[in-house]
Amino acid sequence: MIIVKGGAASPKGYLANGMKAGIKPSGRKDLALLYSEVPAVAAGAFTTNRCQASPVKISREHLKAKTHQAVIVNSGNANCANGKQGEKDAVEMAKGAARMLRLDPHMVLVASTGIIGVKLPVAKIKKALPELVMGLSRANSTAFAETIMTTDTKSKEFAVKVRLGRVVVTIGGACKGVGMIHPEMQTERHATMLAFLTTDAAISKRMLESSLDEAIRDSFNMVSVDADMSTNDSCFILANGLAGNARIAARDTGYRKFTEALTFMAGELAKMLAQDGEGATKLVEIEVRGAHTVEDARKVARKISTSNLLKCAVFGMDPNWGRIVAAAGSSGVEFDYDRMDVYLGPVKALSNGAIAKGFSKGRARKFFKDKKVRIAVDLKSGRAKATAWTCDFSKEYVAINSEYST
Amino acid sequence: MIIVKGGAASPKGYLANGMKAGIKPSGRKDLALLYSEVPAVAAGAFTTNRCQASPVKISREHLKAKTHQAVIVNSGNANCANGKQGEKDAVEMAKGAARMLRLDPHMVLVASTGIIGVKLPVAKIKKALPELVMGLSRANSTAFAETIMTTDTKSKEFAVKVRLGRVVVTIGGACKGVGMIHPEMQTERHATMLAFLTTDAAISKRMLESSLDEAIRDSFNMVSVDADMSTNDSCFILANGLAGNARIAARDTGYRKFTEALTFMAGELAKMLAQDGEGATKLVEIEVRGAHTVEDARKVARKISTSNLLKCAVFGMDPNWGRIVAAAGSSGVEFDYDRMDVYLGPVKALSNGAIAKGFSKGRARKFFKDKKVRIAVDLKSGRAKATAWTCDFSKEYVAINSEYST
Repeated sequence: MIIVKGGAASPKGYLANGMKAGIKPSGRKDLALLYSEVPAVAAGAFTTNRCQASPVKISREHLKAKTHQAVIVNSGNANCANGKQGEKDAVEMAKGAARMLRLDPHMVLVASTGIIGVKLPVAKIKKALPELVMGLSRANSTAFAETIMTTDTKSKEFAVKVRLGRVVVTIGGACKGVGMIHPEMQTERHATMLAFLTTDAAISKRMLESSLDEAIRDSFNMVSVDADMSTNDSCFILANGLAGNARIAARDTGYRKFTEALTFMAGELAKMLAQDGEGATKLVEIEVRGAHTVEDARKVARKISTSNLLKCAVFGMDPNWGRIVAAAGSSGVEFDYDRMDVYLGPVKALSNGAIAKGFSKGRARKFFKDKKVRIAVDLKSGRAKATAWTCDFSKEYVAINSEYST
Repeated sequence: MIIVKGGAASPKGYLANGMKAGIKPSGRKDLALLYSEVPAVAAGAFTTNRCQASPVKISREHLKAKTHQAVIVNSGNANCANGKQGEKDAVEMAKGAARMLRLDPHMVLVASTGIIGVKLPVAKIKKALPELVMGLSRANSTAFAETIMTTDTKSKEFAVKVRLGRVVVTIGGACKGVGMIHPEMQTERHATMLAFLTTDAAISKRMLESSLDEAIRDSFNMVSVDADMSTNDSCFILANGLAGNARIAARDTGYRKFTEALTFMAGELAKMLAQDGEGATKLVEIEVRGAHTVEDARKVARKISTSNLLKCAVFGMDPNWGRIVAAAGSSGVEFDYDRMDVYLGPVKALSNGAIAKGFSKGRARKFFKDKKVRIAVDLKSGRAKATAWTCDFSKEYVAINSEYST
């Protein structure tokens, strides 16, 4: 597996663009388009929130088509809680792009992110479409990644290359989302995490869905900024086959290599999300091992990642590990507290449910001063493990979110 | 039901005290004692956290006794994650009090609150005990309420009187806890919410347990400050029978009147907790109605009460109702979003899943400027309802919790 950062590593056959359509009051870029030069198979994973934004509903419907060729995305407006009009507007967005690209509207997927409860300015989108389509290029993938940003401070792109037989395929991706981040996405069901993944690998739609499912479980679905699940979380992947590998149509070696590369790439994007979390000064990585099942490990890691108290402690560079203990114990997972160990960086803080002999708060504090804080919990009751990512919780987070919609 | 605030309304036969024993580095009061002049029946509810503090384990064990007469409490140290030594120390605390009061040690319940992972200074507690017992008085219930405080800015007491037949019984209570507050307590199983309730009603132990169970479900268990569940949450009630009512031994009218009064009193204490939440400037009350089941209503209300984004918006006095929608939808409860209504104070914001006609953000903002912000969600799919309480989320919360243990 070869790791490549930046737009230069785009998979074959994909063009993108991003521009200002006047949706964001700030006047920044807010309308983006991703296009595959040839029909691609697609898979999507969406928020499991009961309240789903209109573009989520429409994209779920459109994913029933066999092939897809474009994704249109706006930032600055979530097109959520807009009733029937919201659905019409999401369809109009897809149709407008389809018309310009000479595609069936169902071959276009749609996503939105921004404020909830404000009518989508469809007329502005339609007006911008010709310029958006005209500007499609390989070089503009960076514009795409910038356009989908809301409170993000930087754009997020990543790519990997992996050899399948004699052919090297590329998997690339861009994502956004640094607030209202606690995705629990499921394929064919329902984050405002948005992630757009592309690959030139040849793979069947069914295997692509399965691979995406595996990849998001250990990446996007393990990130939390504020424990608030969005109405708009969406992750799309397009696979256009232009790399010319032997088509993946079963769970074979090729599938496993592809899925491993996809999972790695999605994990890197997920870490970028946590690192750029609203107001964040640090990335926090929580590994839970020794669990009975992976699901148990995920639950404990995820619960620790949502502890406001721990996140404040990380912000204050205070190795207050009692907050880790309390959070783990409230996860709903059954484990034997008297066997539990906790590590802060390499420093053992808790040993068999009691403070570790020779624990030095001063030494632990050193590792809480790093830009990346590593916490490990060993339940010592099984062999399953999982890793969750979050950020610290700063006064800046409160500032950003107490002033956002006004 | 007659509502009485303050210590003057104490039920008959209870004495209390609180003093400085040198546990808190700040030098404030940190050791408290509650005593009934005659044996009382007792019930307790404890945190459902998998990681339980030593005093929780010991009190659960002691509650197996038929009668109880005292509760000893320290603040400034949670006596959690101290292994076998922690349990010995909790027993020593109870034994020390029992010796001075000439009671069987099992008649003494014990509770702790404060930092996790620091050995309890039992010698200091033992040294302070004679003075603590000597100072027991009716008037010192206020000292008791002050002593149990940690990051609380004010002490919390409340009392109600209710007529049972020809007799008026009194139910009183004191509580603390404004951080690591998201109790899910269960009787006979397991905050650091601590609540100490007393009554002079005559009631069987079994009915007292049942009544406490009902009362906490709609009060303490519906409060959240930061969604972090403690290892030490404990709620105790003593009933000494000195009011002389016909003893409640079945689910009769007397039981229902007593439980109603107890629930009301616990609810008032719960609101005081939320109002005094760490860094809080506002009390937020969330009513969910029209749910299929009470459990569904509780889950939705509780989920909304833990939304960091909503709580930041309340701090900013920004009526950003989209955050309410997103939180409700992520509760795991199934409901029809297309029927959902949301109210901000009396202002309808969402109607049948779409922004309400004529919604005025300016008008809604008026109600977000109140000290008490009322939010209502109507799922319109059933007749069950529940109310949750929380506070807003301020920069001060982050300041308090990034500097707590250092």
